[in-house]
Amino acid sequence: MEEVFDKLHEECGVFGIYRKNGKTGVIPDAYHAMYALQHRGQESCGIAVNTDGVLHCHKDVGLLTDVFTKEVLEKLPEGRMAVAHCLYGTKATKNRDNAQPMLVNYRKGALALCNNGVLTNAHQLREELADGGAIFHTTSDAELIAFLIAQERLKADSIEQAVATAMERMYGAYSLVMMSPTKLIAARDPNGFRPLCMGERDGDIIFASESCALDAIGASFVRDIRPGEVVVVSEDGVTTLECSRKAQSALCVFEFIYFARPDSIIEGSSVHMARRRAGAFLALEHPVQADVVIGVPDSGLDAAMGYAQQSGIPYGIGFIKNKYIGRTFIQPTQTERANSVRIKLNAVRSTVEGKRVVLVDDSIVRGTTSAHIVSLLREAGAKEVHMRMSSPPFRHMCYFGTDIGSVDNLIAAKHSVEEICRIIGADSLGFLNVDYLPMLADQSHCGFCSGCFTGNYPVEPPCECHQPRCERPLSQSKE
Amino acid sequence: MEEVFDKLHEECGVFGIYRKNGKTGVIPDAYHAMYALQHRGQESCGIAVNTDGVLHCHKDVGLLTDVFTKEVLEKLPEGRMAVAHCLYGTKATKNRDNAQPMLVNYRKGALALCNNGVLTNAHQLREELADGGAIFHTTSDAELIAFLIAQERLKADSIEQAVATAMERMYGAYSLVMMSPTKLIAARDPNGFRPLCMGERDGDIIFASESCALDAIGASFVRDIRPGEVVVVSEDGVTTLECSRKAQSALCVFEFIYFARPDSIIEGSSVHMARRRAGAFLALEHPVQADVVIGVPDSGLDAAMGYAQQSGIPYGIGFIKNKYIGRTFIQPTQTERANSVRIKLNAVRSTVEGKRVVLVDDSIVRGTTSAHIVSLLREAGAKEVHMRMSSPPFRHMCYFGTDIGSVDNLIAAKHSVEEICRIIGADSLGFLNVDYLPMLADQSHCGFCSGCFTGNYPVEPPCECHQPRCERPLSQSKE
Amino acid sequence: MEEVFDKLHEECGVFGIYRKNGKTGVIPDAYHAMYALQHRGQESCGIAVNTDGVLHCHKDVGLLTDVFTKEVLEKLPEGRMAVAHCLYGTKATKNRDNAQPMLVNYRKGALALCNNGVLTNAHQLREELADGGAIFHTTSDAELIAFLIAQERLKADSIEQAVATAMERMYGAYSLVMMSPTKLIAARDPNGFRPLCMGERDGDIIFASESCALDAIGASFVRDIRPGEVVVVSEDGVTTLECSRKAQSALCVFEFIYFARPDSIIEGSSVHMARRRAGAFLALEHPVQADVVIGVPDSGLDAAMGYAQQSGIPYGIGFIKNKYIGRTFIQPTQTERANSVRIKLNAVRSTVEGKRVVLVDDSIVRGTTSAHIVSLLREAGAKEVHMRMSSPPFRHMCYFGTDIGSVDNLIAAKHSVEEICRIIGADSLGFLNVDYLPMLADQSHCGFCSGCFTGNYPVEPPCECHQPRCERPLSQSKE
Amino acid sequence: MEEVFDKLHEECGVFGIYRKNGKTGVIPDAYHAMYALQHRGQESCGIAVNTDGVLHCHKDVGLLTDVFTKEVLEKLPEGRMAVAHCLYGTKATKNRDNAQPMLVNYRKGALALCNNGVLTNAHQLREELADGGAIFHTTSDAELIAFLIAQERLKADSIEQAVATAMERMYGAYSLVMMSPTKLIAARDPNGFRPLCMGERDGDIIFASESCALDAIGASFVRDIRPGEVVVVSEDGVTTLECSRKAQSALCVFEFIYFARPDSIIEGSSVHMARRRAGAFLALEHPVQADVVIGVPDSGLDAAMGYAQQSGIPYGIGFIKNKYIGRTFIQPTQTERANSVRIKLNAVRSTVEGKRVVLVDDSIVRGTTSAHIVSLLREAGAKEVHMRMSSPPFRHMCYFGTDIGSVDNLIAAKHSVEEICRIIGADSLGFLNVDYLPMLADQSHCGFCSGCFTGNYPVEPPCECHQPRCERPLSQSKE
Repeated sequence: MEEVFDKLHEECGVFGIYRKNGKTGVIPDAYHAMYALQHRGQESCGIAVNTDGVLHCHKDVGLLTDVFTKEVLEKLPEGRMAVAHCLYGTKATKNRDNAQPMLVNYRKGALALCNNGVLTNAHQLREELADGGAIFHTTSDAELIAFLIAQERLKADSIEQAVATAMERMYGAYSLVMMSPTKLIAARDPNGFRPLCMGERDGDIIFASESCALDAIGASFVRDIRPGEVVVVSEDGVTTLECSRKAQSALCVFEFIYFARPDSIIEGSSVHMARRRAGAFLALEHPVQADVVIGVPDSGLDAAMGYAQQSGIPYGIGFIKNKYIGRTFIQPTQTERANSVRIKLNAVRSTVEGKRVVLVDDSIVRGTTSAHIVSLLREAGAKEVHMRMSSPPFRHMCYFGTDIGSVDNLIAAKHSVEEICRIIGADSLGFLNVDYLPMLADQSHCGFCSGCFTGNYPVEPPCECHQPRCERPLSQSKE
Repeated sequence: MEEVFDKLHEECGVFGIYRKNGKTGVIPDAYHAMYALQHRGQESCGIAVNTDGVLHCHKDVGLLTDVFTKEVLEKLPEGRMAVAHCLYGTKATKNRDNAQPMLVNYRKGALALCNNGVLTNAHQLREELADGGAIFHTTSDAELIAFLIAQERLKADSIEQAVATAMERMYGAYSLVMMSPTKLIAARDPNGFRPLCMGERDGDIIFASESCALDAIGASFVRDIRPGEVVVVSEDGVTTLECSRKAQSALCVFEFIYFARPDSIIEGSSVHMARRRAGAFLALEHPVQADVVIGVPDSGLDAAMGYAQQSGIPYGIGFIKNKYIGRTFIQPTQTERANSVRIKLNAVRSTVEGKRVVLVDDSIVRGTTSAHIVSLLREAGAKEVHMRMSSPPFRHMCYFGTDIGSVDNLIAAKHSVEEICRIIGADSLGFLNVDYLPMLADQSHCGFCSGCFTGNYPVEPPCECHQPRCERPLSQSKE
Repeated sequence: MEEVFDKLHEECGVFGIYRKNGKTGVIPDAYHAMYALQHRGQESCGIAVNTDGVLHCHKDVGLLTDVFTKEVLEKLPEGRMAVAHCLYGTKATKNRDNAQPMLVNYRKGALALCNNGVLTNAHQLREELADGGAIFHTTSDAELIAFLIAQERLKADSIEQAVATAMERMYGAYSLVMMSPTKLIAARDPNGFRPLCMGERDGDIIFASESCALDAIGASFVRDIRPGEVVVVSEDGVTTLECSRKAQSALCVFEFIYFARPDSIIEGSSVHMARRRAGAFLALEHPVQADVVIGVPDSGLDAAMGYAQQSGIPYGIGFIKNKYIGRTFIQPTQTERANSVRIKLNAVRSTVEGKRVVLVDDSIVRGTTSAHIVSLLREAGAKEVHMRMSSPPFRHMCYFGTDIGSVDNLIAAKHSVEEICRIIGADSLGFLNVDYLPMLADQSHCGFCSGCFTGNYPVEPPCECHQPRCERPLSQSKE
Repeated sequence: MEEVFDKLHEECGVFGIYRKNGKTGVIPDAYHAMYALQHRGQESCGIAVNTDGVLHCHKDVGLLTDVFTKEVLEKLPEGRMAVAHCLYGTKATKNRDNAQPMLVNYRKGALALCNNGVLTNAHQLREELADGGAIFHTTSDAELIAFLIAQERLKADSIEQAVATAMERMYGAYSLVMMSPTKLIAARDPNGFRPLCMGERDGDIIFASESCALDAIGASFVRDIRPGEVVVVSEDGVTTLECSRKAQSALCVFEFIYFARPDSIIEGSSVHMARRRAGAFLALEHPVQADVVIGVPDSGLDAAMGYAQQSGIPYGIGFIKNKYIGRTFIQPTQTERANSVRIKLNAVRSTVEGKRVVLVDDSIVRGTTSAHIVSLLREAGAKEVHMRMSSPPFRHMCYFGTDIGSVDNLIAAKHSVEEICRIIGADSLGFLNVDYLPMLADQSHCGFCSGCFTGNYPVEPPCECHQPRCERPLSQSKE
């Protein structure tokens, strides 16, 4: 289901384009690509364009279509390079200052930087920089990274060398796309937590969080950026270098389960097929006698189809989602009669009335939405409701970019499967076994991070007292 | 597919509520219900509320969530009755003045009126009224209807009698919900072209274009308003009277094929099931050897599922629709590389690559969108594309509320099926046979209008020179 | 002082232009002219343009610069004729529906109508029309007038004849500018309550409420429209006819005292000079020993200068008005320390400290603002404050367009001059004697209405039970 | 005259408040005070508030009333301290990033900083900081100053000591108001180029650019901040320290001539009286036989009054300024008939017709506006027009905060007085002699900068190649 419900949140989408032979026209590309990546972040967005070495940036809080109005698009200059970003943003980052691209000036000129991820040593880096007399305008990791690159650049031979050296000081998840007056650079953390791929179109080079952004602008997929790799595009073509620090491959498995778009290909595997496989595995592990399999729109539909196909139980359309759902929907005060789930979803009575229903969703966070959905089905006449989740129980903090606020928000951290089943009012409940996770992306050779299910993380998490992000407002009581 | 594509357009959605025993709190109900009916009209919307006999109205151009902001909702007074409206609007009606409810004052006080439909004798009525010294502020049929009611009310014993008498002078399609200081009234034209149903919740009476609006506010379906019927709700309860003119039952069959929401029940039949049946009939009539059946999101999905089930060919997800599609999307100028269909839809390569694909959509208007969609499938590797339409070829003007502009816009009015197949680039093309139409809504006892397919209309269409709507701006050269 | 204070309110400004020989380009003229007339109404505004016989109108609530944004101006078609309007609006009329020009269609085509004034028999006219089956969309007199013209036009030979006949049925104040597909028409009530003049520029004919609008577009003043006159401009040139009903000339004297712009010439007299004369008369009638004469910005300045000149006491700048005063100023809650007058005005200490001050303002309504201003002077060190008003005490209702809400709002209706002096905290207080009023506009040959000072009205006021404007919302409990 | 004409531009207004005993309620004070200082900067504005040691800031491009809407004001938390800023902004600074207060975090917590002025060594400071690995988010001096303070704070015992030490490294004009979690600090450059004063209200301490802001919130003037002084307000009361670098006193004389509000008192002298004295000196030096003295609204009025009084020629109102002039006024394309000056000003014919007119303005920049104004007077019938300027000819660059773009914009840098007289079409032209400048502010003991008239600057101007402000976008071609 959607971000308007009780769902997990991805942090960001990033994009960059370098057009060949000085051709311009990158603004429409950036706009269309970010439109395709909008699901990765709805809090703020921005585009920076490189016009003959001068960088211009427009960014603001809001969806792409809110921020980039006709007037704004007309005023933006054109150029041969652009980087762009969309951000989900936690409560602490939800303000205009943290929007990206982050455009800064330093010893060697301007730099526009976009990041998807979270540094686990952000607190230590911030302290170090402050001890050297730094001032911070934001609470964003992107500012820390820009500072590190600016410092390394004083010693390094090139911006890309500075990036590679800076990466040795950065721990955690980051997929970077950045632009100097003359170069476009992409880099991915040594674990490869978040996806980042490269595409090509008539000689133009494109970087994007997901391949669906390449499709949107008519580019073809070239390859994924390797963990720890720095790719540089300039007049001299595409070159690559590696961060010297190595680490185990650990792609976030939730990219396949929920975050990414089904039409994207990540590390060689189709997201859509991975979800169908999840549904099929669920059917094998948690079979049930039933009349129809339905999915919770939209993210449960693929797995539901996989469940139906494997089990032989017919697939049906159980819910109609109101397609005008948007961020501006006002919930008038007198809402006891019309809860917010009902307004977004309506059960299709002819599909479920008198039936034993298998209801497939991708994951469960607080559990309140699931309870509402189960009750909508019962109101519409479902005889039995068997809930199936296409992921294991979400029980542990994520330190690499999935925002859950606090472990206290996770129903699976506090309750057994049986208890959850009772709380949401289902007749039975089954989760995908964690052992199946590596098998979802059947064409991928990377490793996966499943720390949120198991508590085993590929990188040391930050200690309790230093949370990964500085969530404090811009002040403290020292002075 | 959606209204952002090359699609047919419904005219309007209407709603009314009368709360029992003077209870107030009708604004949230109207807001939620219109949100559920938003698919019936996106041009403008409005809500009128009755506060102790005084009528207040807010309406404007835009979607419900644009027009009814938090600030507007807070300023609207509450009341025990409300009527509400959303309008698609043709080019001529696309302005604030034509937004409804139409709130007027006349001899007997105020009247707030909402209409879904088109009068075929609007031109004659306008001439008659003008000859009597009338002035018109709008080009809307609702204003004509209000004038007729005001005139009849001078002679009639009650507002409902005035409505019934006025109906004798009105030809064409109209589903009305209106509100006087003390009464809520619903009326439907003698042919019953457009749907209108009644619901109930704890004694409150509700009227709505579709039953999905009842679900949205926790009300239960009572019955459809009968063609020619006038239903009145007041302190004395619910009473009914009939227009003296009788006509053949002729519900617009496109309500089942495309306009209505799949979770609505119209004249006793599930819209979702009617679409699956359409798909099944298509499979019987136009079978093909293929590997996968996919639908064009969203309105082709139900029929695709019916086709798959009947044919035994697996159902698949062929396209991902960008869920941030909205009215504010800007098409930057440099768009040759990224056509507008590609931005809204992306093919799922893993579903269609190397496959023979059956592609199901609900209807074809100009054909340009279909051509784009077929080519997206071919780019994604589909070996064959067999297009199936869950309605007959649309060849004739509609005079009862479906806006097609001109017959010249209809590809099927100018080309044979074979020609269309070639134009859109499909390997084969099949339309639903018109004989199947009465069988789609298998639980319904009403008749259907299929004039747009056959050219046979249940009511005399207006003569050529007097088009059903006055599309002219508010002027003419007489003076 | 300004409309943001406790001041009287004018009802409207009207404008019309007919360009010679089919030249277009009337939108900039209408825009500039209305900008010059903005002081006559800040509630809503609108422009209607005649493009080859087709009338287009844009109007909305707000100032000209709010309503006519760049985007709106670019979308408006051009034409050879335009009419325009700005409206102050009472509480009852403060909504978008009452904005003018009122654009309607009737038997003979379109009509766009602008009015400045108030009909005293509006209630009776509304009843008559309703008895004939009329419906009303607004509570505006302009709608009544349009109805009357539409009815008379059925019998009359021309639109101008219909206007002249309709005028026989209308009582009270009205200055009309209206446009048919081929003609521009101006008309003024038989008493001539509100100003209306004609100008000329290279053969183009212009009508405007005040001559300052002519200056704004480079036109020269031709003459005032006579009371009871109807002036028609068409391809055949300018013609004139007279309403058959005659009445005594009764221009509102407040136009000279406060409403009109000082740079306007009305009925041959300079408004600026009239105000200086008022100040001079005040000095003769209410002399005082003092050190400096200051005016309340902006409308008291001219009279203060006249007082200074006549008395020989030096004129000084006593207050600085904040020039960013606008309608959007937010008064945060915690305002006890900074009252709203202080925010708009600040005393110039160097002018008033230790001085005996003569403070001149144009009129006093509630008295609260005067009290604040006197206290600002005392805080700034003024030794004595002698208040002088350049109009007589405002004691009676105005039925002809000056909105005071209720006589209860008038301090002079309830208190003697001595009491008022004490309430506002002045050392002395003097009002202009009513006998001087006819002498202010020394070049004018018209009569004046001074009903608000004397209670003697040139036209029968409406009876108590039928207030001149229907202030009720669009409803009543009859039905 | 106003900022909408061809006028000089001040850079900024600053404000700060520290309430006694932990009382809150500083937002309305900041809002009202900035409203009074709006004339010092219309490009952007902001308020930062200190809520129990946590700093919150809202700022944006636009006027105060645009940026601080009701909704924004309601969301801002309250506190016991606030700082606020308005900025005129040159072309380079006209963006949201350069808006102030500048809120940053550093080793010792948060700092919110507001500056009025321009550093002459900004370029060198920027180079130094960049060499140390700094990154810059803006092109604003305020960011440089924040960096210097953050660096000095690492060594200093207190924030105020850090400010005083940082000031030794800063050359040029700056009036600073800043806030740490516990202190409010004001500082003024050693030359005292820009005004900055302290006020008091029931124990609350206030800093503001001009005393009119104190009046707006009911505070009383205490004293001016001394050049080179740092004033600190904390729980321990008000303390003061001095920057060790000394320099000659050099207040910008244009503060008296044009920038400041007439109701302000700067360095002990009334701005209003200084302008009257300028007019009186003009009358002595450039007498003429004439019938009336008029001023160009608003800034020429005081000097005109002084000229009239000294010369004995009657003072008159020569122009009416449209009081709805705002930033959103659209100039429709077809403007040849209505030039932009005519729209803002209209001559009062009764004042000038047939007269010999002395026209007083404060200064002349390009000369185009003056030419228009002279021609408006001639159109209105003036027989002679004698222009008098209450300042000497503006011939040289200002490096301390008055934005003139380029010396090429200055008519007086390229033409003699006789030539200018001919260009603007006046009958005679006289400027104030530079020798009179020190006598305008007769109560002040400070020195004055008159570099823009004489070319002699109290501080070494930046060399040609290093302009005082980095006007380049955030990029350069080094990388």
